[in-house]
Amino acid sequence: MSLAATVKTVLAEVQACLDRIDDRQVRAFLSAFGKAKRVFVTGQGRSGLVGRAFAKRLMHIGFEAYVAGETTTPAISKGDLLVACSASGATTTTCAHAETARKVGAEVAALTAKPTSRLAKQSHVVVGLETRFLRRNLVSPLGSAQFSTTLFEQACLILLDAACLELMKRRKASTAQMQARHANLE
Amino acid sequence: MSLAATVKTVLAEVQACLDRIDDRQVRAFLSAFGKAKRVFVTGQGRSGLVGRAFAKRLMHIGFEAYVAGETTTPAISKGDLLVACSASGATTTTCAHAETARKVGAEVAALTAKPTSRLAKQSHVVVGLETRFLRRNLVSPLGSAQFSTTLFEQACLILLDAACLELMKRRKASTAQMQARHANLE
Amino acid sequence: MSLAATVKTVLAEVQACLDRIDDRQVRAFLSAFGKAKRVFVTGQGRSGLVGRAFAKRLMHIGFEAYVAGETTTPAISKGDLLVACSASGATTTTCAHAETARKVGAEVAALTAKPTSRLAKQSHVVVGLETRFLRRNLVSPLGSAQFSTTLFEQACLILLDAACLELMKRRKASTAQMQARHANLE
Amino acid sequence: MSLAATVKTVLAEVQACLDRIDDRQVRAFLSAFGKAKRVFVTGQGRSGLVGRAFAKRLMHIGFEAYVAGETTTPAISKGDLLVACSASGATTTTCAHAETARKVGAEVAALTAKPTSRLAKQSHVVVGLETRFLRRNLVSPLGSAQFSTTLFEQACLILLDAACLELMKRRKASTAQMQARHANLE
Repeated sequence: MSLAATVKTVLAEVQACLDRIDDRQVRAFLSAFGKAKRVFVTGQGRSGLVGRAFAKRLMHIGFEAYVAGETTTPAISKGDLLVACSASGATTTTCAHAETARKVGAEVAALTAKPTSRLAKQSHVVVGLETRFLRRNLVSPLGSAQFSTTLFEQACLILLDAACLELMKRRKASTAQMQARHANLE
Repeated sequence: MSLAATVKTVLAEVQACLDRIDDRQVRAFLSAFGKAKRVFVTGQGRSGLVGRAFAKRLMHIGFEAYVAGETTTPAISKGDLLVACSASGATTTTCAHAETARKVGAEVAALTAKPTSRLAKQSHVVVGLETRFLRRNLVSPLGSAQFSTTLFEQACLILLDAACLELMKRRKASTAQMQARHANLE
Repeated sequence: MSLAATVKTVLAEVQACLDRIDDRQVRAFLSAFGKAKRVFVTGQGRSGLVGRAFAKRLMHIGFEAYVAGETTTPAISKGDLLVACSASGATTTTCAHAETARKVGAEVAALTAKPTSRLAKQSHVVVGLETRFLRRNLVSPLGSAQFSTTLFEQACLILLDAACLELMKRRKASTAQMQARHANLE
Repeated sequence: MSLAATVKTVLAEVQACLDRIDDRQVRAFLSAFGKAKRVFVTGQGRSGLVGRAFAKRLMHIGFEAYVAGETTTPAISKGDLLVACSASGATTTTCAHAETARKVGAEVAALTAKPTSRLAKQSHVVVGLETRFLRRNLVSPLGSAQFSTTLFEQACLILLDAACLELMKRRKASTAQMQARHANLE
């Protein structure tokens, strides 16, 4: 199989996963940003990298955005929003962050492949990015061709980037404004 | 436009970008890993996050992999491979890394949206992920609907994850072995 | 009070804290490096930054050293050493790391201001860097003049750097070798 | 030599280095924070870790503080302050940051062991933390006993922490306020 064919398989998986997203969940997710004072993002491993890619764009759009664990991230508090990415919905640190956020009165929005997970139960808003159905669908009779939670991470990035396009509109963020906020110390 | 429609637009852009990749470039890219003693990854901003997601999988597959700038990353030297991600191919730090890598006798493989860029010229292997053609194609008559280099970053992640599937085969890395290497301190 | 006077107060605190370190604890700490296959370092917040400064030097000295949570850090396993820095000895993530390390058969060495803490109890080797005694000693009748766990972090850095000098000798690491390992992609 | 003796040597070096700081430089450094809209911190390697430890405390004190290169760090602009730590004063990335900061009209304050370096020349305020004099002083006739720029990094941390005590007073930051800002998602 050539790499072009592998790329096609991967994209078909991402497409299949995103096709199954519940539109009401996504609307609830987007609404959470309208009310948020500040936005915090958490996630471990590759889910954390995807979360950071999202946090960066939120900053460009004009949100006061922070990544949990980075140096100058302040305490989360009432009125803030925590976006938590975890395929399993069971990552210890991510669940601990969700718990703390709830306790202080912040909103929690989870992106997870397991809508029945501990994280999902702790969250006010859940966007399910299920990938397990692939085990019995046409894309691959044996399920996702990819290692571990790779498909979740890819789908998560694409979904959050699409969400950014919507948030840009709602915030009336112009490309010029966004470019002006873009880090110049890299 | 609902978010489902936006997701479709984004995926169509990624698909269109990846459809245009030159297969010979990808083959040269994959070959570089066969000869590499160790693999270093560099990139700034969101390109750097995508690079890190790739470096993590390389470690799972069994490569000795490092991210430029992380705490215990040693000096790159002769026989090593540097994978550099930069949409513009002009990011100062990334180009400086490529230059250092060349000087010490390491191989440099670039992923860039500008195959005529400074970074591309510094590299032994170049994979062009062009996105500019979108400005005149059917996906969007106005070009990519997304902010700045977003499309490059998405296409880069998908391509590198597809490359991982190929490298897993070449290295005969089993899922069990990869799972055993997966960080347990998160 | 001029800044010179403040600097003197701070240094006197660090000195007083380090004067009270138990030499047997430090010897046990150093011995742990003789047996370690690989060294992992963990800590959150500023304790984590101090831990990273140590991990970097360990790499220069010739250890296979990793920071918990960084991109290409593999799974810790039997025969490895985890160095955990936590003033309170109660930081959730750090204690979770210590627990995982123990479970897989790795050695755990803790640096903490509370030698009776949960972390200390989980650890095979404990170096106590007590700072509370300052509350009743001559340096400052009101205790440390500094915010929160600042004194612990300073004392920890100085102690670990002193330990590096000792480890360099034991490993017969020459300055030239160490310089050669120093990151050239910064 | 026991580790206690090594610790004494290290502390004596730090003391000797800090004893030589020019008080007028430190006063100019502290003044720069009075005028700063926001504070950005940069530095590579262990100097970068020390810079981050400082940035974290600045956030606690109530400054809008950012670390160059972290995910949601925005563009630096007119009225901001860049604090740059570099022993050599020649680190490529750090000098590039200083140059960008100057260009956009931000103030640059450098901490360096070489007050005649490129970085020092680019900076509005310079605090010299010289360590080379040790090569001929009593602490160690052969100069610092420590590897590379270790002494600079230690002295830098202690000086910046002392500066924090002064900035806390100027800002009238109470311990309670600072504790309330302390990250609760770790």
